[in-house]
Amino acid sequence: MSVLVVGSLALDTIETPFGSVKDTVGGSATYISAAASYFFSPVRIVGIVGGDFPREGVAFLEERNIDLEGLEIIEKGKTFHWAGRYRYDLNERDTLSTDLNVFEKFDPKIPERHRKSRFVVLGNIDPVLQQRVLRQMDNPRVVICDTMNYWIERKNKELLETLKQINVLILNDSEARLLSREPNLIKAGKVIRAMGPSVVIIKKGEHGALLLTESVIFSAPAYPMENIFDPTGAGDTFAGGFAGWLARTDDLSEENLKRAVIYGSTLASFCVEKFGVEGLRGLTYLQIQDRFRQFRELSRFDED
Amino acid sequence: MSVLVVGSLALDTIETPFGSVKDTVGGSATYISAAASYFFSPVRIVGIVGGDFPREGVAFLEERNIDLEGLEIIEKGKTFHWAGRYRYDLNERDTLSTDLNVFEKFDPKIPERHRKSRFVVLGNIDPVLQQRVLRQMDNPRVVICDTMNYWIERKNKELLETLKQINVLILNDSEARLLSREPNLIKAGKVIRAMGPSVVIIKKGEHGALLLTESVIFSAPAYPMENIFDPTGAGDTFAGGFAGWLARTDDLSEENLKRAVIYGSTLASFCVEKFGVEGLRGLTYLQIQDRFRQFRELSRFDED
Repeated sequence: MSVLVVGSLALDTIETPFGSVKDTVGGSATYISAAASYFFSPVRIVGIVGGDFPREGVAFLEERNIDLEGLEIIEKGKTFHWAGRYRYDLNERDTLSTDLNVFEKFDPKIPERHRKSRFVVLGNIDPVLQQRVLRQMDNPRVVICDTMNYWIERKNKELLETLKQINVLILNDSEARLLSREPNLIKAGKVIRAMGPSVVIIKKGEHGALLLTESVIFSAPAYPMENIFDPTGAGDTFAGGFAGWLARTDDLSEENLKRAVIYGSTLASFCVEKFGVEGLRGLTYLQIQDRFRQFRELSRFDED
Repeated sequence: MSVLVVGSLALDTIETPFGSVKDTVGGSATYISAAASYFFSPVRIVGIVGGDFPREGVAFLEERNIDLEGLEIIEKGKTFHWAGRYRYDLNERDTLSTDLNVFEKFDPKIPERHRKSRFVVLGNIDPVLQQRVLRQMDNPRVVICDTMNYWIERKNKELLETLKQINVLILNDSEARLLSREPNLIKAGKVIRAMGPSVVIIKKGEHGALLLTESVIFSAPAYPMENIFDPTGAGDTFAGGFAGWLARTDDLSEENLKRAVIYGSTLASFCVEKFGVEGLRGLTYLQIQDRFRQFRELSRFDED
């Protein structure tokens, strides 16, 4: 078994109503691989950073025992930088700046040793790059893919091509509506499944997530957070926890997909409790199990 | 055991993307009592209509074995009339007209025989009238109350007074945020509980509902509806199903409150499948049980 994660590594400047942080380590591949690493190790990462990527960033990934062979470092370049500000209810954010820097020329090269990875997680990057990754892989068992409004609107044709080559698509509710042109989320899920992925997961933020397969609709609750500190990376963390659990168990049954959704939600709930990747540092398996059980309590009811 | 419902009876003109209907029987008390009647009988209704209230409307309530002693008929007056149009995604609606007619002078008079009712459901009416109802009651066991933006904004002081006298408040997410001035729904629930009701239920439409008590947070899924025909009355139907189940079982434990939320959701899911009150006509207990179990499947997952 093996897990390969491809996506961005970034330096994020984040403002929330509770504080702000400058140039903290972030990026989709960082969050995905850190979350997955709680279930499966070592996770392999493929991405690109500049010479300014801090020693702490590398140390964080190393702490999580992430295989960095596929991490390209352009010493003379600058790391992808994103700056954003969350509004008071944390449900909306404004992007203040996006400097792609070395990420602009990212051309993912999968190390020979990683090409047989059984689980591939394609972070939210250009669908053209996602396909380029898949062309280098040797018959992966499961391909899990994230995307966003930007690609749905600007690279629709390319995204549709990617969708034909993946097994699981993870996206949020507004993205699902945009991609399917269908306001009803259940119908949207069906439309998207017909585009390729046999499993679609629609994230609904504070309302939880929907898992849609051929025969199952599963509604996962959201963890009742009173104090969300920083939502950055929650979606990537969800994808990482989901993928990590599947890789750990190597079980693609619908019952296990449900558990994977809850483990993804569990990791995401830890992520948003602290700034940046801090929430994904040093969690114990006991903490994760405990919160998983809280998710059960939250949605459990008996007939009588 | 006995259930008293106070609220509006109306004639609704409804336009949805799927069709329209003119002057169909509606109103909060109609939906609440019809839904509750599937669990408990006879439900007592207190409301007011004009001489134009159609024979079919009375027949519908009689079919549901609803006690009409408290229904005031002003032969020379006209029934409350509401007209609205739903937008294409059915999540938003525009009110086209509201003619209060006889409802403008509604002064609920609780028949002597009904004053000892143990369960009281106060539909979405002026909080001043809600208090007037409670003053006529003889120590009810449970008072369940609905409200809306209009009263939160225009009769805030009076509503806060009502809240001190009730046990369960049912409202939707935007109303909860408005009433509590708190964007986080879990915090909003706590703030509202501190205003009086020991149980708060926050309806989230297509995202289900939250039940908040002193020690429990329960997240109920939404039934995955692909074809919502007409959302009118769904919230009232939820309240009726919830109240009816509690009255049937006379059990206020947290486990049973959860079941009541699911039964409320179950009835609401039937309601929106047809225009007006049609979805609440002639359901069998087997149909209701079957859908209740589908709600369980929807949110059930096992640890391993």
